[in-house]
Amino acid sequence: MDKRPIALAEIYHLLNPGPVVLVSVEHGGRDNLFPVSWVMPACDDPPVAALLVAREHFSFPLLEASGELGLNLPTLPILDAVYGCGKTSGREVPDKFARFGLHRERATTITAPLVAECVAGIECRVDRIHDVEGSALILARAVAARAAPDCFRDGEWRFEAGLVLCHHLNGARFCLSERAVTARRP
Amino acid sequence: MDKRPIALAEIYHLLNPGPVVLVSVEHGGRDNLFPVSWVMPACDDPPVAALLVAREHFSFPLLEASGELGLNLPTLPILDAVYGCGKTSGREVPDKFARFGLHRERATTITAPLVAECVAGIECRVDRIHDVEGSALILARAVAARAAPDCFRDGEWRFEAGLVLCHHLNGARFCLSERAVTARRP
Repeated sequence: MDKRPIALAEIYHLLNPGPVVLVSVEHGGRDNLFPVSWVMPACDDPPVAALLVAREHFSFPLLEASGELGLNLPTLPILDAVYGCGKTSGREVPDKFARFGLHRERATTITAPLVAECVAGIECRVDRIHDVEGSALILARAVAARAAPDCFRDGEWRFEAGLVLCHHLNGARFCLSERAVTARRP
Repeated sequence: MDKRPIALAEIYHLLNPGPVVLVSVEHGGRDNLFPVSWVMPACDDPPVAALLVAREHFSFPLLEASGELGLNLPTLPILDAVYGCGKTSGREVPDKFARFGLHRERATTITAPLVAECVAGIECRVDRIHDVEGSALILARAVAARAAPDCFRDGEWRFEAGLVLCHHLNGARFCLSERAVTARRP
């Protein structure tokens, strides 16, 4: 998908509406993908994202050792692949890109690949990790990002061209954002 | 709005899809409301929420001193009120409930009121506060919650009765979740 670089100041708007994110990691020649819905912006300037990752997941050591991760924004056409990435482990599936029909896209500042079929990708470096009841609360500094201009332009998600964002509900259920409204100023 | 208690194990499903949340706080007889979109679950058992609050906001000292907050889940009919609560400060508006046509609902375990017009309310106690670039990253333990059964039942958001969740995009823009889909198992 054709994507263009976006400004650092615009990155947090990609995560504001709380969509599910497909995380990409790589270390020592091995990469992996897993969906995360517990992710949010934690700062706009500098751009920082916060996300929860279970330490026992196959991807956690890759993420921890490389200190890098990609946050890829999927939309409805690849929702089954996103869900599949979460229902399988890198321990059993050596190549989740191949298994779920996704393609690697080279990042500019990190080794982990981005996901070509996603409408936006954020390149991050791990800043700090806090513990929350045994899970890793990761604070990751965004260092670069790109987005498909028909979906995200001038710092705004655009729904005119058919964009459908996916938000995780429970199990295999997701709710969908298909339109935007503007609240009235007080 | 008629709401019923929900199980602690179901609480994180309220926050999973990343909706904007109306936070209620109270200390020393003074309460306030402010919207937060940087909020997510941080643990399911025990239920913990993570959210960002700027330390210079009027509400932060109330939250810090009381160690409590309410997370109220608004829907489209009160979106203008939610936005209004964010565009005004407790320093200038002594009663945001009155200013924006909302009503207090007594919580069961915390002093802060919940918002009667919201479809769900989570009662939380502050567990820890980390710093992220000067803002407060609050980890809050959920101790009780209630939800309107036509909107949230058996741990699941339900869209059949017209539920519309609101997710913040940028400025006054929000995207809307109005339906759910089920992803295909891999």
